[in-house]
Amino acid sequence: MARARSEERRAEILRATLEVIAERGYRGATLGAVAERVGLTQQGLLHYFPTKEALLVAVLEDRDRWDTGGGGGEEGAWRLELLGSLVEYNAMRPVIVQTFSALLGESVTEDHPARGFFTRRYTQVRAGMAATLRAEYGDTLPGGLSPERAAVLLVAVLDGLQYQWLLDPEAVDMPGAFGDFLGLLKGPEDPS
Amino acid sequence: MARARSEERRAEILRATLEVIAERGYRGATLGAVAERVGLTQQGLLHYFPTKEALLVAVLEDRDRWDTGGGGGEEGAWRLELLGSLVEYNAMRPVIVQTFSALLGESVTEDHPARGFFTRRYTQVRAGMAATLRAEYGDTLPGGLSPERAAVLLVAVLDGLQYQWLLDPEAVDMPGAFGDFLGLLKGPEDPS
Repeated sequence: MARARSEERRAEILRATLEVIAERGYRGATLGAVAERVGLTQQGLLHYFPTKEALLVAVLEDRDRWDTGGGGGEEGAWRLELLGSLVEYNAMRPVIVQTFSALLGESVTEDHPARGFFTRRYTQVRAGMAATLRAEYGDTLPGGLSPERAAVLLVAVLDGLQYQWLLDPEAVDMPGAFGDFLGLLKGPEDPS
Repeated sequence: MARARSEERRAEILRATLEVIAERGYRGATLGAVAERVGLTQQGLLHYFPTKEALLVAVLEDRDRWDTGGGGGEEGAWRLELLGSLVEYNAMRPVIVQTFSALLGESVTEDHPARGFFTRRYTQVRAGMAATLRAEYGDTLPGGLSPERAAVLLVAVLDGLQYQWLLDPEAVDMPGAFGDFLGLLKGPEDPS
């Protein structure tokens, strides 16, 4: 019961964090601002999340849980046909994409608290995508790559497009470009 | 003459900045540390670069100038055959790639001082790459895309691979993956 209340409180804090980011931007999302929004002291908030980075990582883990279909955990959770929809969905929620992209950028610096999260996440995401591609295409994709080598590029395109799109949403059609890439992976269609 | 000395001083500051980043990481590269290294007061350094972000942007602009062949400015400066070599070269200089990637990540947040630099840079880089691809392949690449649509993906792959590689250099073969992508753009080879 105490545990259920604590879980609820955590979820409430994560929602509040997104709202604060939406209003004040990533750098303005201080622990103090989040605490105020949920009616906690900053000390009380630290009980749930010891640092701002821990809080932001939790927001992103929550996003991943949603995006991969909620606790299913089976291989192929990143089904290829769904990835296009995910990119379209992301194009409608710049705030969470911005949070993800800003934190990914920071995480590559030495000793950043989110570095472990992202390193593990990418290992998992690459393996999940490779499994999906193998289930769909076997050991070689029509475009000629192995599932593992295609997975690295798939993830790179997803991330790289987000930066270009966030910087210049008018100039970059993120879902369209991702569709172009899937077309390259699938190789030339039968001329008919 | 005063101008030449000032240019020289700027170049010296940029070199010192890279050294400081190499030693202390991106976040540890304070204006104070850079000033000390070049024997300026912090006030003196601010005369050349008013903020840390301005200094880091200047470092990256300097990198771009080198990477595109130094002031030539002609179309096709990003020659496709050279891009593979650039990726191999980048794989040997993690510090500058890390600086670039961390600053790109930050730049997508609201009102970041490097946002304008990156937005302009990507507009130019996409246009330059599209021109290169058009010169080489005409209006349609063998893989089926227009030069403009291929250029967006080319840039996305370059950036996205850098994040995966910085986080986990053992797991990600950045030059190999980029070569895979060039292969997709070029389409299936003649079976012979």
